[in-house]
Amino acid sequence: MTDPQDLADRVREGDLRIHELEAHADADVAAEARRLFVEQETGTDLDAIGDYGFPAEVAESAIENMIGAAQVPMGVVGPVQVDGGAADGEHYLPLATTEGALLASVNRGLSVIRSAGGADARVTKNGMTRAPVFRVDGVAEAAETVEWVDDNTGALREAAESTTNHGELLGVEPYVVGDSVYLRFAYDTKDAMGMNMATIATEAACEVVERETPASLVAVSGNLCSDKKPAAINAVEGRGRSVTADVVIPGEVVADRLHTTPEAIVEANTRKNLIGSAKAGSLGFNAHAANVVGAAFLATGQDEAQVVEGANAITTMDTREGEDGTDDLYASVSLASLEVGTVGGGTKLPTQSEALEVLGLRGGGDPAGSNADALAEIIAVGALAGELSLLAALASNHLASAHEDLGR
Amino acid sequence: MTDPQDLADRVREGDLRIHELEAHADADVAAEARRLFVEQETGTDLDAIGDYGFPAEVAESAIENMIGAAQVPMGVVGPVQVDGGAADGEHYLPLATTEGALLASVNRGLSVIRSAGGADARVTKNGMTRAPVFRVDGVAEAAETVEWVDDNTGALREAAESTTNHGELLGVEPYVVGDSVYLRFAYDTKDAMGMNMATIATEAACEVVERETPASLVAVSGNLCSDKKPAAINAVEGRGRSVTADVVIPGEVVADRLHTTPEAIVEANTRKNLIGSAKAGSLGFNAHAANVVGAAFLATGQDEAQVVEGANAITTMDTREGEDGTDDLYASVSLASLEVGTVGGGTKLPTQSEALEVLGLRGGGDPAGSNADALAEIIAVGALAGELSLLAALASNHLASAHEDLGR
Amino acid sequence: MTDPQDLADRVREGDLRIHELEAHADADVAAEARRLFVEQETGTDLDAIGDYGFPAEVAESAIENMIGAAQVPMGVVGPVQVDGGAADGEHYLPLATTEGALLASVNRGLSVIRSAGGADARVTKNGMTRAPVFRVDGVAEAAETVEWVDDNTGALREAAESTTNHGELLGVEPYVVGDSVYLRFAYDTKDAMGMNMATIATEAACEVVERETPASLVAVSGNLCSDKKPAAINAVEGRGRSVTADVVIPGEVVADRLHTTPEAIVEANTRKNLIGSAKAGSLGFNAHAANVVGAAFLATGQDEAQVVEGANAITTMDTREGEDGTDDLYASVSLASLEVGTVGGGTKLPTQSEALEVLGLRGGGDPAGSNADALAEIIAVGALAGELSLLAALASNHLASAHEDLGR
Amino acid sequence: MTDPQDLADRVREGDLRIHELEAHADADVAAEARRLFVEQETGTDLDAIGDYGFPAEVAESAIENMIGAAQVPMGVVGPVQVDGGAADGEHYLPLATTEGALLASVNRGLSVIRSAGGADARVTKNGMTRAPVFRVDGVAEAAETVEWVDDNTGALREAAESTTNHGELLGVEPYVVGDSVYLRFAYDTKDAMGMNMATIATEAACEVVERETPASLVAVSGNLCSDKKPAAINAVEGRGRSVTADVVIPGEVVADRLHTTPEAIVEANTRKNLIGSAKAGSLGFNAHAANVVGAAFLATGQDEAQVVEGANAITTMDTREGEDGTDDLYASVSLASLEVGTVGGGTKLPTQSEALEVLGLRGGGDPAGSNADALAEIIAVGALAGELSLLAALASNHLASAHEDLGR
Repeated sequence: MTDPQDLADRVREGDLRIHELEAHADADVAAEARRLFVEQETGTDLDAIGDYGFPAEVAESAIENMIGAAQVPMGVVGPVQVDGGAADGEHYLPLATTEGALLASVNRGLSVIRSAGGADARVTKNGMTRAPVFRVDGVAEAAETVEWVDDNTGALREAAESTTNHGELLGVEPYVVGDSVYLRFAYDTKDAMGMNMATIATEAACEVVERETPASLVAVSGNLCSDKKPAAINAVEGRGRSVTADVVIPGEVVADRLHTTPEAIVEANTRKNLIGSAKAGSLGFNAHAANVVGAAFLATGQDEAQVVEGANAITTMDTREGEDGTDDLYASVSLASLEVGTVGGGTKLPTQSEALEVLGLRGGGDPAGSNADALAEIIAVGALAGELSLLAALASNHLASAHEDLGR
Repeated sequence: MTDPQDLADRVREGDLRIHELEAHADADVAAEARRLFVEQETGTDLDAIGDYGFPAEVAESAIENMIGAAQVPMGVVGPVQVDGGAADGEHYLPLATTEGALLASVNRGLSVIRSAGGADARVTKNGMTRAPVFRVDGVAEAAETVEWVDDNTGALREAAESTTNHGELLGVEPYVVGDSVYLRFAYDTKDAMGMNMATIATEAACEVVERETPASLVAVSGNLCSDKKPAAINAVEGRGRSVTADVVIPGEVVADRLHTTPEAIVEANTRKNLIGSAKAGSLGFNAHAANVVGAAFLATGQDEAQVVEGANAITTMDTREGEDGTDDLYASVSLASLEVGTVGGGTKLPTQSEALEVLGLRGGGDPAGSNADALAEIIAVGALAGELSLLAALASNHLASAHEDLGR
Repeated sequence: MTDPQDLADRVREGDLRIHELEAHADADVAAEARRLFVEQETGTDLDAIGDYGFPAEVAESAIENMIGAAQVPMGVVGPVQVDGGAADGEHYLPLATTEGALLASVNRGLSVIRSAGGADARVTKNGMTRAPVFRVDGVAEAAETVEWVDDNTGALREAAESTTNHGELLGVEPYVVGDSVYLRFAYDTKDAMGMNMATIATEAACEVVERETPASLVAVSGNLCSDKKPAAINAVEGRGRSVTADVVIPGEVVADRLHTTPEAIVEANTRKNLIGSAKAGSLGFNAHAANVVGAAFLATGQDEAQVVEGANAITTMDTREGEDGTDDLYASVSLASLEVGTVGGGTKLPTQSEALEVLGLRGGGDPAGSNADALAEIIAVGALAGELSLLAALASNHLASAHEDLGR
Repeated sequence: MTDPQDLADRVREGDLRIHELEAHADADVAAEARRLFVEQETGTDLDAIGDYGFPAEVAESAIENMIGAAQVPMGVVGPVQVDGGAADGEHYLPLATTEGALLASVNRGLSVIRSAGGADARVTKNGMTRAPVFRVDGVAEAAETVEWVDDNTGALREAAESTTNHGELLGVEPYVVGDSVYLRFAYDTKDAMGMNMATIATEAACEVVERETPASLVAVSGNLCSDKKPAAINAVEGRGRSVTADVVIPGEVVADRLHTTPEAIVEANTRKNLIGSAKAGSLGFNAHAANVVGAAFLATGQDEAQVVEGANAITTMDTREGEDGTDDLYASVSLASLEVGTVGGGTKLPTQSEALEVLGLRGGGDPAGSNADALAEIIAVGALAGELSLLAALASNHLASAHEDLGR
């Protein structure tokens, strides 16, 4: 049995390198040794980080140089009442965050949504993308390459799909800039978020392109994918799931539960989310969709950096004539590029897996893709609840005081 | 002593609501009761989520409806060798993520940076913003309001700063759209990320504006702040810290350690990060800065949704004539809007606090603000390492295979 | 014969309205009467405006309330030597502008391009778009509508194409935001710029959508077209022609004719057009493509407001290893959304028609669309010449002095 | 007296170059010779282009290689009734365009505005910008340079203002990206559009920067200006004049004159101009402001390529409770970056000068800058009229049929 302190000493002496420890001990001992080394180098005490609740080897495909775990408080909101294309009924939604007042706010919104009979939700587009960039001699070759690609989607599909059991190539869109050709491949990756599936499949297709055209691959990602960057191409064309949730809230419920009026909420939404975002040169026309997306991603094992694309959301609010002559409130949020999965990546870790289980969405769906669709729809309803609650609070002019009360 | 199952039963019977449990038991018992309720409602087992390593009351200002914690694997990279305006010397950087291969990649980049003698880093701008939106009668009143604001910054400063011990108002920028007036307040919030400080200070200033001008407050945030949305105003003007890290890597090191050439890396950067992002309508001209920002934010208790603004980064790569006639590689990353703090919010939680301790940056700095500056600089060097490593890998055409090897 | 002064008097007395004059006199007399009225109302003398060189009735479909013409100096540059998909050989390009030094600069660039054997050019995408917006009850109906559209493109094509002899519907792309559905129709409008053709065809298709789905038309343009606005959707997906021109300039020519080096030009392009535009949150990564587009549009009768979309251009510059071991310069400009036609609209006016004749591109091409393609390619080479010349001048640090010499 | 045909022959024989003719004859003869040459080379007849109504030498600072003039039909709309910061009363606005139905549409809108008692208008910001880019060694030098600039605005002002009789330096904003430093200089250029003034002044300031800091000038324009490109920096921060026009239209007027309701117009504006533009990734949240800007620019001698920045406009429409209980319509348009002048450039040409005279705004104003302010305000009211009219037409679903009737 290897002694962690021995290993730590060997690292300090330069005998071992910090990422080589797993070759000399099991994963938990290696993590302990690394922790000891860091503690001694930095004069710190890593008890909390070291107090993680899963076998380190479970995390081997998720991290290198492990020392333990970050623990982020997780709570639950709901039930989320949803009538979706894939999701249905009532679900508790786990959220992990350090943003005080967030869950209270979302929960209030969800309660209002339930009072209105629940929200509708639909995934209106689906496709995980990867866009390699190729070098050509000039635009003459670029045009030739694009023409070949347009004529040979079948060959590219065959190559791409040979690398995956589940993924399907939906299409390839070419873009030319000077002597660079970008091909944006879009895949149905079913219940996986699918970025690695898309990368591997695209690499296979790239080999065909290189063989059959004058184009040479420069990088398997040419940033028209676009992954983890705030890009209009995602906001316009979508990436992962494009999903909308909406609800009509009776005017009476707005008055009783949100202490304001549909008109005041519409005004706040228009001046802030529409006109304010317009003036800011924004791709996000919402109040704080990223808060809900981020907290749901963290709880359910999604890629935390993809919160970036998750923020490409447009919130609309409008009055509708109600049955009794007074106005009701129509509210919607449309997330253009929500990249979620219920299999693979961080979803396999223990706390994340349990969170998906709470939603009834752990693992692959039947039909394939339906669990990820449902997850997208439920997160969209959560985001809608957050928008409703915050806009109502703003309409009542008490955002900051809410934070004060809740103790930040 | 309250029995958690009793409390869970009372919730199920509708006798208590899910967010009222803390009024009937201490925080840990309340969390247990809520967990029991959710387990029974959803037929799940929340052992992992319940196995959190801190007293629940510690998290009371960070979350509501707590059921436990998400555990995200944390590793360490480094040392980060930096010659900064605030940071200096060598630091181990904790990163929490579920993205396999990320830490290995960043660590490789950091090793290359050390071989080059370390990176430079500077915070070139600093200001946390909050931009309320006001309603006026029309542009005549808008012009009048803007003129008053321009002439009375002193009065606004007095009101704003009366609410805070540390924050300083740096300036107020007015924007007019029709009958809406937006005032973008910028603050030096020292070692705090400072969004709540900025909100509270701005609310006080808004009262003065409402009293002295025809303008009426519609919302304390009018989205020109812009918080947690991908907005050009942040990419152009900054929010939080604007920070750049750069390094010159000798050509020999590029060859030996990255197995490629400065020219090949420059080409990949130009076609992907510059031209590809240009064609994508992007605000992020980088490869994957958000990965490093997201993982560092999660480890150190930053606001995970602010990864959105953290992605507003431009990576540049250029050749420089080396001493021996061969080319060296100049590499930089400039993050326009990195919102970080070392006090407040999630930084107080145990694992996050320990991670800041590893960096030597827990709590307020001396002078005030220097710890948050240093954190920004170190994250920037980490992002630079990630850019270098990924671009080198792309230049060598093996991104996907790297993922395959590392086992996703 | 009606007396213009009589008519002017009747307008002043309120007996006639300013736009009713054509009902009481022929077009030239009406214009004279209107001129007299304006002269007397404003105490001015409109001799120059009144000295226009075409029968006023020729302009009746181009303007209302005519008083005469604006005369903008027109010059000629060239020959433009181009090896294109549609254009070939040498063409003189007329440009109308009031921007001193512009033609001299473009002409210098064209001369350098000729020294390099001419430029290549290709239209890589073509489609004039119109995107109506529909109201639905909510996302459930939106999803239903999108599904119907996806399944019934044939019916939409039939309706759309029934309104036009030449236009072809290329496709329909749906976008959902809350209770709004946008359908972006793209047409091949051959040698016409085609916006009106696209509008009329789309109106016919909208009737089918309204009849067959729950959607109600709100506006035949919902701004996802997007016409005369700076929009990422055009920069990414194109509108009208997407066209690229490029050339390799021998290093010797760069030295002799542009008095600088390929490396210096590449540096200026990278720091200004790529990184500077990135930092500016721009959709235009070029130096002054709009100058050439605007001047060519004015000379050839294009829609002057569509210069907006014409500015969505990316300029790339790179060194290439030359035959003699020294570097050559690769230069390209890619205009994403160049909206041009050689029939209809302003192309029918006398001076504009003559300018198209100079290019050999008046009227419809054979095959249909080839004249507009060729016009796009020639303008692209003109823009490339402008980019080359200005970047070379910047690289030599003498932009402002060039303007001084040329006498502004 | 030189014979133009002789000169044309000498060009054809290669004895003279096309741009050298002015050295051998007066400007009109040179233009005629060039016309002859082009006619013979291309087998065309340039009678209309040659029939220009001004001495060619007048255009010498506006164009090179002159062959004549483009004649664009000019009409007049109005009166524009405006209560502005600089403009007041009623003005006829000349517009030059080939877009049939445009003047009719704007005129209808202006008539409605008069029925409402006229529009308000204000210039809320003013500053012509030029942003050179400098090379530094790295971020350490960049930070040093920025600090020097912040501390020495006085020295930069002195250098810049030494080059101009009228211009005033308003401020300098630094931006850092890696080893590039951008300094955005903003000037009050009074009644001149001012781009050349700004360029020349900035060149002088750059010499000081180069002398006093480690920075080396790469290009006097680094694209953060940003001139003639669709850039968020202009839409957010403004360039030239930021100007808003607005009006409240009584509900009765909307019904009688626009044949629709305030509610229907608001809906069209929200779904098209706000939400549609949001989804399109646009910087232009308007219907067709560029049409009016473009036509006014052409008529009054502005820079036609700056229509690009003129399209950075946001249109808002809202209902307001009217006196009689029915709703009125509040309408506004805010143009962020309208670059206009009444002296210099194309304003000196005969037809353009007359058009400014019609507006009462030829030459410099008293106080300096007031004429250009007034021009901006009047164009803004014209754009507002265009927005009102088109949105009303869309609300009535008859955009395309209007075009059909008017004969395109």
